Amino acid sequence: MAMHAADPVVGLLLNPGSVAIVGASEDLGKFGGRALHLLLRHGFRGQVYPVNPNRAELFGLPAYPSISAIGNAPDVALLAIPRRFLRDAILECAQAGVRAAIIITSQFAETGEQGARDERELVAIASAAGMRLLGPNCLGLFSPANGVVLTTSPALDIDQLRAGSIGLTSQSGALMATIFDRANDLGLAFSHCVSVGNQADLEAGDIVEYLIADPATRVICSYVEGFARPERIVALAEAAQAAGKPWLMVKAGRTAAGERAAHSHTASLAGSYAVLEAVARDSGIVLLDDPDAMVLAAGAMARFDCQSIHRVAIITTSGGGGAIAADRLSDAGIPLAQFAPQTAAALDPLYMPGQASNPVDLGGRREGEAVSIAAATLDAIAADPQVDLLLCAMSTAPAIPQTTADLADAAARSGKPFLFFMWPGSVADGGRARLLERNAPFADRLDDCVRALRAWSDWSRWRERGPAPAEPRPTGIDSAQAAALLAAAPTGPLAEAETKALLAAYGVPVNPGHLAATPEAAVAAAEQFGYPVVLKLATPNLVHKSDAGAVLLGLADAAAVRAGWAQIATNVAAYRPGTTVEQVLVQRMETGDLELIIGGRVDPQFGPVVLVGAGGVLVELLADVQLARAPLGPQAASVLLQRLRSYPLLTGLRGRPALDSAAVADTISRVSWLIWEQRERLLELDVNPLLVRTSGVVAVDARGVAAPPNPPLPRGDGGARA
Amino acid sequence: MAMHAADPVVGLLLNPGSVAIVGASEDLGKFGGRALHLLLRHGFRGQVYPVNPNRAELFGLPAYPSISAIGNAPDVALLAIPRRFLRDAILECAQAGVRAAIIITSQFAETGEQGARDERELVAIASAAGMRLLGPNCLGLFSPANGVVLTTSPALDIDQLRAGSIGLTSQSGALMATIFDRANDLGLAFSHCVSVGNQADLEAGDIVEYLIADPATRVICSYVEGFARPERIVALAEAAQAAGKPWLMVKAGRTAAGERAAHSHTASLAGSYAVLEAVARDSGIVLLDDPDAMVLAAGAMARFDCQSIHRVAIITTSGGGGAIAADRLSDAGIPLAQFAPQTAAALDPLYMPGQASNPVDLGGRREGEAVSIAAATLDAIAADPQVDLLLCAMSTAPAIPQTTADLADAAARSGKPFLFFMWPGSVADGGRARLLERNAPFADRLDDCVRALRAWSDWSRWRERGPAPAEPRPTGIDSAQAAALLAAAPTGPLAEAETKALLAAYGVPVNPGHLAATPEAAVAAAEQFGYPVVLKLATPNLVHKSDAGAVLLGLADAAAVRAGWAQIATNVAAYRPGTTVEQVLVQRMETGDLELIIGGRVDPQFGPVVLVGAGGVLVELLADVQLARAPLGPQAASVLLQRLRSYPLLTGLRGRPALDSAAVADTISRVSWLIWEQRERLLELDVNPLLVRTSGVVAVDARGVAAPPNPPLPRGDGGARA
Repeated sequence: MAMHAADPVVGLLLNPGSVAIVGASEDLGKFGGRALHLLLRHGFRGQVYPVNPNRAELFGLPAYPSISAIGNAPDVALLAIPRRFLRDAILECAQAGVRAAIIITSQFAETGEQGARDERELVAIASAAGMRLLGPNCLGLFSPANGVVLTTSPALDIDQLRAGSIGLTSQSGALMATIFDRANDLGLAFSHCVSVGNQADLEAGDIVEYLIADPATRVICSYVEGFARPERIVALAEAAQAAGKPWLMVKAGRTAAGERAAHSHTASLAGSYAVLEAVARDSGIVLLDDPDAMVLAAGAMARFDCQSIHRVAIITTSGGGGAIAADRLSDAGIPLAQFAPQTAAALDPLYMPGQASNPVDLGGRREGEAVSIAAATLDAIAADPQVDLLLCAMSTAPAIPQTTADLADAAARSGKPFLFFMWPGSVADGGRARLLERNAPFADRLDDCVRALRAWSDWSRWRERGPAPAEPRPTGIDSAQAAALLAAAPTGPLAEAETKALLAAYGVPVNPGHLAATPEAAVAAAEQFGYPVVLKLATPNLVHKSDAGAVLLGLADAAAVRAGWAQIATNVAAYRPGTTVEQVLVQRMETGDLELIIGGRVDPQFGPVVLVGAGGVLVELLADVQLARAPLGPQAASVLLQRLRSYPLLTGLRGRPALDSAAVADTISRVSWLIWEQRERLLELDVNPLLVRTSGVVAVDARGVAAPPNPPLPRGDGGARA
Repeated sequence: MAMHAADPVVGLLLNPGSVAIVGASEDLGKFGGRALHLLLRHGFRGQVYPVNPNRAELFGLPAYPSISAIGNAPDVALLAIPRRFLRDAILECAQAGVRAAIIITSQFAETGEQGARDERELVAIASAAGMRLLGPNCLGLFSPANGVVLTTSPALDIDQLRAGSIGLTSQSGALMATIFDRANDLGLAFSHCVSVGNQADLEAGDIVEYLIADPATRVICSYVEGFARPERIVALAEAAQAAGKPWLMVKAGRTAAGERAAHSHTASLAGSYAVLEAVARDSGIVLLDDPDAMVLAAGAMARFDCQSIHRVAIITTSGGGGAIAADRLSDAGIPLAQFAPQTAAALDPLYMPGQASNPVDLGGRREGEAVSIAAATLDAIAADPQVDLLLCAMSTAPAIPQTTADLADAAARSGKPFLFFMWPGSVADGGRARLLERNAPFADRLDDCVRALRAWSDWSRWRERGPAPAEPRPTGIDSAQAAALLAAAPTGPLAEAETKALLAAYGVPVNPGHLAATPEAAVAAAEQFGYPVVLKLATPNLVHKSDAGAVLLGLADAAAVRAGWAQIATNVAAYRPGTTVEQVLVQRMETGDLELIIGGRVDPQFGPVVLVGAGGVLVELLADVQLARAPLGPQAASVLLQRLRSYPLLTGLRGRPALDSAAVADTISRVSWLIWEQRERLLELDVNPLLVRTSGVVAVDARGVAAPPNPPLPRGDGGARA
């Protein structure tokens, strides 16, 4: 998929020739004071214009009473002023010809509808003048690669801002600064960090687009509360992959509690996390649940040029620490390498019997403590082809700094990826200093190491697997007929017969049915299908038909059909007084060996998706559902199906017959094409159940929901424009 | 259950009047040098005897050439000498009348059988003289409560050793020191810390017994690789509960990888973690998977005198941080409090619309930044009866130290439990200093906070629930008959008929069966039961009877029974040549609405346990099993049953009939009494399946394993005596 070139304004924001600080002061207790101080402190090489009507000079620079008073327009204006002054300031910037404004000021869309209106007005003012906005409700940006600091965060009040190759976008400003501060202690360094706040104009995708093309950035990290333009995500992910750059992401609002918090923070609608997981999985974005672990992973991956990792070897100074680390890596599904014979042979002279296996405890040495065995141990293990990464878990021990340095030097020589886990507190600071000197990645907590390795290993598997191959559209689809059916359908719930007609048009097997208007017509239909039959009240307006007694199964003869008609009339009248029986659907009674659910949805963020899940009683027990973006072919559908926990039920478990998985995959694919091609009128559709047999499948019940004609195109609502 | 008083030698080890350091020196690069240095550094008030034949004086103290040369025996000797000198040193200590020896020296049971033999010899030497041993392969102990440091760890080389109320036992010495060092940075303080190493003599349970009785200890923490005496665990847990002291535990070797590591470290056999989980759950021990989180939880619980916590309120300086924290607490099943109306009313004047809900972002204030709203916010939230604990999540922000102090002071005033999460790195060190000054609990990583709160909340629920009430033994049990059956049974697998006879003796409904020696006898039995019937080859030696074609279901008449007999003979001869048909079990064909598995085991560590699980195809999909120590009554069995994920299948899910849960609980109880009372001969027993109906249950297949007569009593094997 072709990418547009990144918007040049992002490059300008990250490396402006001139900057105005509106609301500048010398008071570090104020936003404007900190912004000016930090910009100067980190040696900005361009022109700086402090704007403050009450001061002639600030930090030795001439101050200006207003933007217009500067004379020539600055590339970028940073606005950290009270909300009541903001509109006029933006207007002034626009009139003066400022190219982009960074709005630190908050209390816009995140506070409700009035704020959202005010925010839209800011965008309108800027757009009219060709000016772009970052924020509001953001904390600015900083670019260590360019020596540019345009933020108010005290986390940047440090002596040296080191440039690295992690590019970061964060919807939360405080979190950007927090992540940066901790990462900085760990020696992790960034190319550019941008907080996007309410994303009124420029949004995270614009920044990511820039980072993909940016030579200084090796790995991209994003902290997201809501997507302003979710429809861009897949194309951006593909571009990142094409550039060989991992894209790691933490999405807040995975849970109901987190979703509420994200909404009140940056007015973001979290969207379905399950759909995002499916999108990420298929497009190579790595999702994590912790921002620090994300940055640790990014730093380690960048440090080792994104080599693939799968199996880990642990070298430790504590046997107990090694055992805990082994447990926790196992919990996370990260395999420990089994050493090759030559590795064991190389370690045996150094270690007591039984001690030279993974994890290796340096304390298990043979006698002779004076000699360090750390480097020799690491050399032997790094040479093992089974080992992709060395995790050095350091506990308190005599000579931690020296042992740490020995291990780090040997690891660096080996060329293999490595990560240090510095378990103790300050007693290990000498070891940490050695690692910082050596640009060796480390973390202080095992959780961070495990999460980072999990993300790295997920990305490695994705890269080796590659995207799913393209598959043709299935044959035997009559999309025109389906479109005609939908055009004629009313808005809202679709009756079973209408839904099945859509399915049939897309080649999904449905059980034959006949709409009968009288008991005798029902008997005639039953005689044609053959007994036993099923009777169902035909109405889209009764969702829980079984509860209402409006479905009767296994009717064995004509008398039973007549009696059934009367019974349904009695039942539904009792269930909801006034309900009458206009039509009854007569169907052959079908049997199958397994029930599945197959559905389609138009996700408000990511568009049409297809899902498959366990049906019947397993629904409640397993919550066993897999999702993918529509459309997909039978091969991709088969992969999806195999991710179900209940997939073994299809393969002939414990003497049961093997069922027709190919027919299920074909049905998933057809339903995915149906929801994809008919997405403008079909909002959702469920086959429940799909009966699966040793040969073939059949949809025995189905329902759908039709959208109003000519709906607005589904699009994201993740930003302040909500 | 009555507890013995704690062994007085533990008190002596933690507070000796006199100590000999064998292998003492002034070289801090050596174990003996560090041990002497650390003992003196922390102001030990008793007598110190350095033992070193080559020196007259060490650190200004007179040195002795040997233990015997001291004259009067020291209470405790610490031995940090090469392994080849250790046996003679122990002999000398024993002869001199030393009361207890701490053996730092390693390379004993953890290195194999020769090491284990040598270790047993050390114990024998000591026992003969009435001397007790700690270790070998440990790192000693330290008692901040008494100002005693008897360890070689550089982590103790600190200026001030603060006394607190966390008591710690650790099988790993390096981990004890590592945990201590990190905890010390967080202001967490200990009463006593003891590493037990290979547990050749004194074991962790001896230390825990002391800590339970110790007035200086409020909460007990244990890091365990294997239990030396697992049979003590439940009594110790009960004593801890009676003393009102939470007992937190991390057990290494939960996974296969961790188990291998633990074994090579301290020769520990990990044992079944599932059984430990059941024991812990029922006896109030709180299991965690991370030692630092364990100590954080302990410190916070102790700080707030172990108040119960359930619902959490988050106060944060970062909306993004609040959203992440809310997600992660939700993942861990920790509910966020919903604020009461008066809380919302109190917060509304301070916050922008929509911002005064949990989590509360201090950045969501109304205009007027100069005024700190932190204390007022905390006051309002702490007054909310729905809120049990305040989690203050601090990000980078201006004035972190002041905001942190304001929040901590308000929290302390409120009397409600609280915990700080200090998310940034060094930029938040000013805030950390304020918390340390105030003895306010905090952690640097969200994972640690979440784990600690989970443990604390688990313990709160346990305490409020209390132990299960005692229930009488079920009636209708003929244990003598079962014992007689087992006495007559051969060692090894029990046939289905024998196993069912045991079940019947304990009042478990089994389907009637008849052992037929000829086809005609089978037909006669079938006529008596009524058709259809089941034929099964009667032999305990064919485990997978179905695979062998030795089970035929649904035989409808006499001809089918005769043909079935012949078919079984053909099938088993083909499956395993030479197998002949001696006897066939004829049973009535039973039906049920659900299949369960109920079993009993004699766990090598914890003795008899009972288990219940989903049967049929759900076994593979759900791995849905619950365990408890035997015996238990029907009420406790019902609680166990309700923990199954598939429990809804018993309660009438989606129009299915409700099944006889009471009969299932009764059966679990009876099987638990069977395995408990017959544990000396019955090693294990499985009912698979138990068919469950709307009324009643029936065991349709069952197998057991008989132990050799007069087996050794099951006991633990967790220590070096393995």
